[in-house]
Amino acid sequence: MSRDEEKYDVDIQEVENDEVEIYELSQPTDEEIYASIIEALHNNDQEAFEEEFFKNHTYDQAQIYLTLEPADRVKVHHYLDPKELAEVYDIIDEDDHDQILTFLYDMEDHYAADVLSFMYTDNAVDILNELKPEKIRTYMHLMPKAAADDIKVLMHYADETVGSIMTTEFVSITTNQTVKSAMTMLRAKAANAETIYYLYVVDDDNRLVGVLSLRDLIVNDGNVMINELMSDRVVSVDVNEDQINVARTIQDYDFLAVPVVEETGELIGIVTVDDVIDVLDDEAMQDYSGLAGVDVDEQFTSPWASAKSRLPWLIILLFLGMGTSSLISNYEGMISEVATLSLFITLITGTSGNAGTQSLAVAVRKLATPDDEDSNLGSMILREILTGLISGGVTGFVVMIVVGIWQHNFILGGVIGISMLAAITVANLAGSLIPILMDKLGLDPAVTSGPFISTLSDLTSVLIYFTIASQFLHLLA
Amino acid sequence: MSRDEEKYDVDIQEVENDEVEIYELSQPTDEEIYASIIEALHNNDQEAFEEEFFKNHTYDQAQIYLTLEPADRVKVHHYLDPKELAEVYDIIDEDDHDQILTFLYDMEDHYAADVLSFMYTDNAVDILNELKPEKIRTYMHLMPKAAADDIKVLMHYADETVGSIMTTEFVSITTNQTVKSAMTMLRAKAANAETIYYLYVVDDDNRLVGVLSLRDLIVNDGNVMINELMSDRVVSVDVNEDQINVARTIQDYDFLAVPVVEETGELIGIVTVDDVIDVLDDEAMQDYSGLAGVDVDEQFTSPWASAKSRLPWLIILLFLGMGTSSLISNYEGMISEVATLSLFITLITGTSGNAGTQSLAVAVRKLATPDDEDSNLGSMILREILTGLISGGVTGFVVMIVVGIWQHNFILGGVIGISMLAAITVANLAGSLIPILMDKLGLDPAVTSGPFISTLSDLTSVLIYFTIASQFLHLLA
Repeated sequence: MSRDEEKYDVDIQEVENDEVEIYELSQPTDEEIYASIIEALHNNDQEAFEEEFFKNHTYDQAQIYLTLEPADRVKVHHYLDPKELAEVYDIIDEDDHDQILTFLYDMEDHYAADVLSFMYTDNAVDILNELKPEKIRTYMHLMPKAAADDIKVLMHYADETVGSIMTTEFVSITTNQTVKSAMTMLRAKAANAETIYYLYVVDDDNRLVGVLSLRDLIVNDGNVMINELMSDRVVSVDVNEDQINVARTIQDYDFLAVPVVEETGELIGIVTVDDVIDVLDDEAMQDYSGLAGVDVDEQFTSPWASAKSRLPWLIILLFLGMGTSSLISNYEGMISEVATLSLFITLITGTSGNAGTQSLAVAVRKLATPDDEDSNLGSMILREILTGLISGGVTGFVVMIVVGIWQHNFILGGVIGISMLAAITVANLAGSLIPILMDKLGLDPAVTSGPFISTLSDLTSVLIYFTIASQFLHLLA
Repeated sequence: MSRDEEKYDVDIQEVENDEVEIYELSQPTDEEIYASIIEALHNNDQEAFEEEFFKNHTYDQAQIYLTLEPADRVKVHHYLDPKELAEVYDIIDEDDHDQILTFLYDMEDHYAADVLSFMYTDNAVDILNELKPEKIRTYMHLMPKAAADDIKVLMHYADETVGSIMTTEFVSITTNQTVKSAMTMLRAKAANAETIYYLYVVDDDNRLVGVLSLRDLIVNDGNVMINELMSDRVVSVDVNEDQINVARTIQDYDFLAVPVVEETGELIGIVTVDDVIDVLDDEAMQDYSGLAGVDVDEQFTSPWASAKSRLPWLIILLFLGMGTSSLISNYEGMISEVATLSLFITLITGTSGNAGTQSLAVAVRKLATPDDEDSNLGSMILREILTGLISGGVTGFVVMIVVGIWQHNFILGGVIGISMLAAITVANLAGSLIPILMDKLGLDPAVTSGPFISTLSDLTSVLIYFTIASQFLHLLA
């Protein structure tokens, strides 16, 4: 979360080795500082520890904290007050949440509860959501009521909704204030608000009626009224929308934050740009994983775990592949008669599989960004079919010539070429149709994986190939 | 760019139809406003046009502008002064740059030059880079020298470097100033600076020595000296680094902007979070395209263009596939003897292709984020081989049973099973090895496409399958 405005404790050395710093996040930014931190911990020297530790930017404090031995970490929990540790936890990103869970269990409950209560509400909720119900109750009971209430509110929102990533620490003012009074208010809230750069204006029913930026405040005279200054045309998002919507809004409008409202128009929170970056990153990773038929973010260090997570897809597709085998078995006689036909099975299945994967990826992407002209699904499918016919035609022609010359048999070449044309066209159709169907069914098109499309097109390609071949068998045999 | 702080003219209606608004970017946010804008243009009513047009947020102004008929657009160029149009162009994102080029040619040169000079330097450079040299000279000659100089500086930086996305509109102060004087300076620069929320402190040689945030300024007393307040431990990036590095820095530290320095430590620009979001988005799209072997961002509306862009990969892989065919041809005799063998070619090639794609995706991802523990390549490859052995073993066992029962022939089942085990292991090895090799060769691992891996593993799998099968031929025949 954007506490960076508050602290900038990163060694100037980083100007030189910034690249290293970025690519070895789990490494300290400055070896000496790291060494002396460890030393201070081993000497149980709290003062020295704090001096060295706070030399680092919060992000680097987090990276150091994550590399500590359990014993040292426990000491840190005694040296840092809950608020200081909360700042560290606020910046530890999604992937490391699970680790935080284990850390919490090493703490005394009241300390853990305090840490959670000092964190930005959205981050605290992310962590609490992964805890056991009884543990949640314990912490909620131990933390200040105000914090517990904020957390309860956010915990109600479904995963991947705007509500699940919004925070309640924002600055709101009323229309009848002056710039001066707004500034005073801002100074008071500056420490806790997640961003003080946008001020949201609400009416007596706490409904969002306007917005202005800190930029507007500082360039205007102290006596100007807020309602003269504010813009009453506010872009906001509904708390129940998909989080990707708020991400796109911030990306498109170049906002630093977007206000979140209830159906009633009541202002209940904000989503900040730093959270949105992580959302976009996750979405991209999910799409990538979907295309490969594997969770690319797999953090497993053991091959067993990796294999376990990849096998389901492989086995499912294996049985789909069995379908292809049994299909071929119907043509076993034909193959033993003209064994040459078997040479080109992989050529046709492989090439059409590649074409299908291309169509799939394009379709998934188009469905994710329907802002471009051709979001019309019908025309999208038609275009994929035509694209398939053209690329299939070219590929088929090439293969016909090559096979014809190689096998001194242009009838065979023709059979392969025509099969290739048909197989690629069908693969393109499947590649674009399946994501669209999933989208229509309310499923995420990105989960239709590339492996699935290529395995499916193996089946259709073989069917097409042998059906066509059998027509010309008397000429081939 | 972040001009949003200055203008918030978006209809409150959007609170309700925000989703629509987001998913139909090329549509106006408010039909009536759009209608009256068009009407005003057709009536040549500049006043009415301006009143309606400026009701919209800059982003929505951009969307409206992009949908205009050429004739109407020319009128807009007469109604808006260059600064107003520059704000619109500043928010039109990458994808639409090419359109801007055509728009520029419709304008008088001096007007176009003014628009470019009023844009944020980094955006102006993005556009200029796509223009013909003589056109660039014309514009540079017509615009104010100061602007032209800023642009010349940025144009030197290579594509995809920090320099190519940084902007020179930032606020810098000196250590010996007070909070009060800094605020005064800030007010003066607020209009032009891309962000006023971070103030960068420089010494007499313009070297970056500190940073503080507007938050720091407003919570402190006017007489406090900057050097008491600033943090002298600044995270900055080198102007020649890869742009992805600055993106990761901003993502990790949750900054709103990062200062850009020369090797000398001299402060020359900043990169803002909004640009970084687009960088991350592009990188993600490139990875996705790489995995599918197609440019998923293809904006083509014609199937010809799509086919043209996809064919190269298909044809290259076609010839790799021919290799597999000619390999099989060596075993043609064996196949005509035991045609049953041909049933399982696609099963083995398909399954190992899927496994290889999984390994590829995981490897590419790991190489992109080496911050996790196992950035050790050796262990990464070893783990993929072990993962291959395990998943290959399981898959092989399953297939052995199924084939054994189906074909009443457990020797055949065993042959298929062992081939499957070996083929999957090799595919996993290839899937992880190839991206690593590309990375070592200084190429982007993400360009190694899934289609390539599956076509390659077709070859290795067939080789493995028939080599093993030929050993047991006397038992199978």
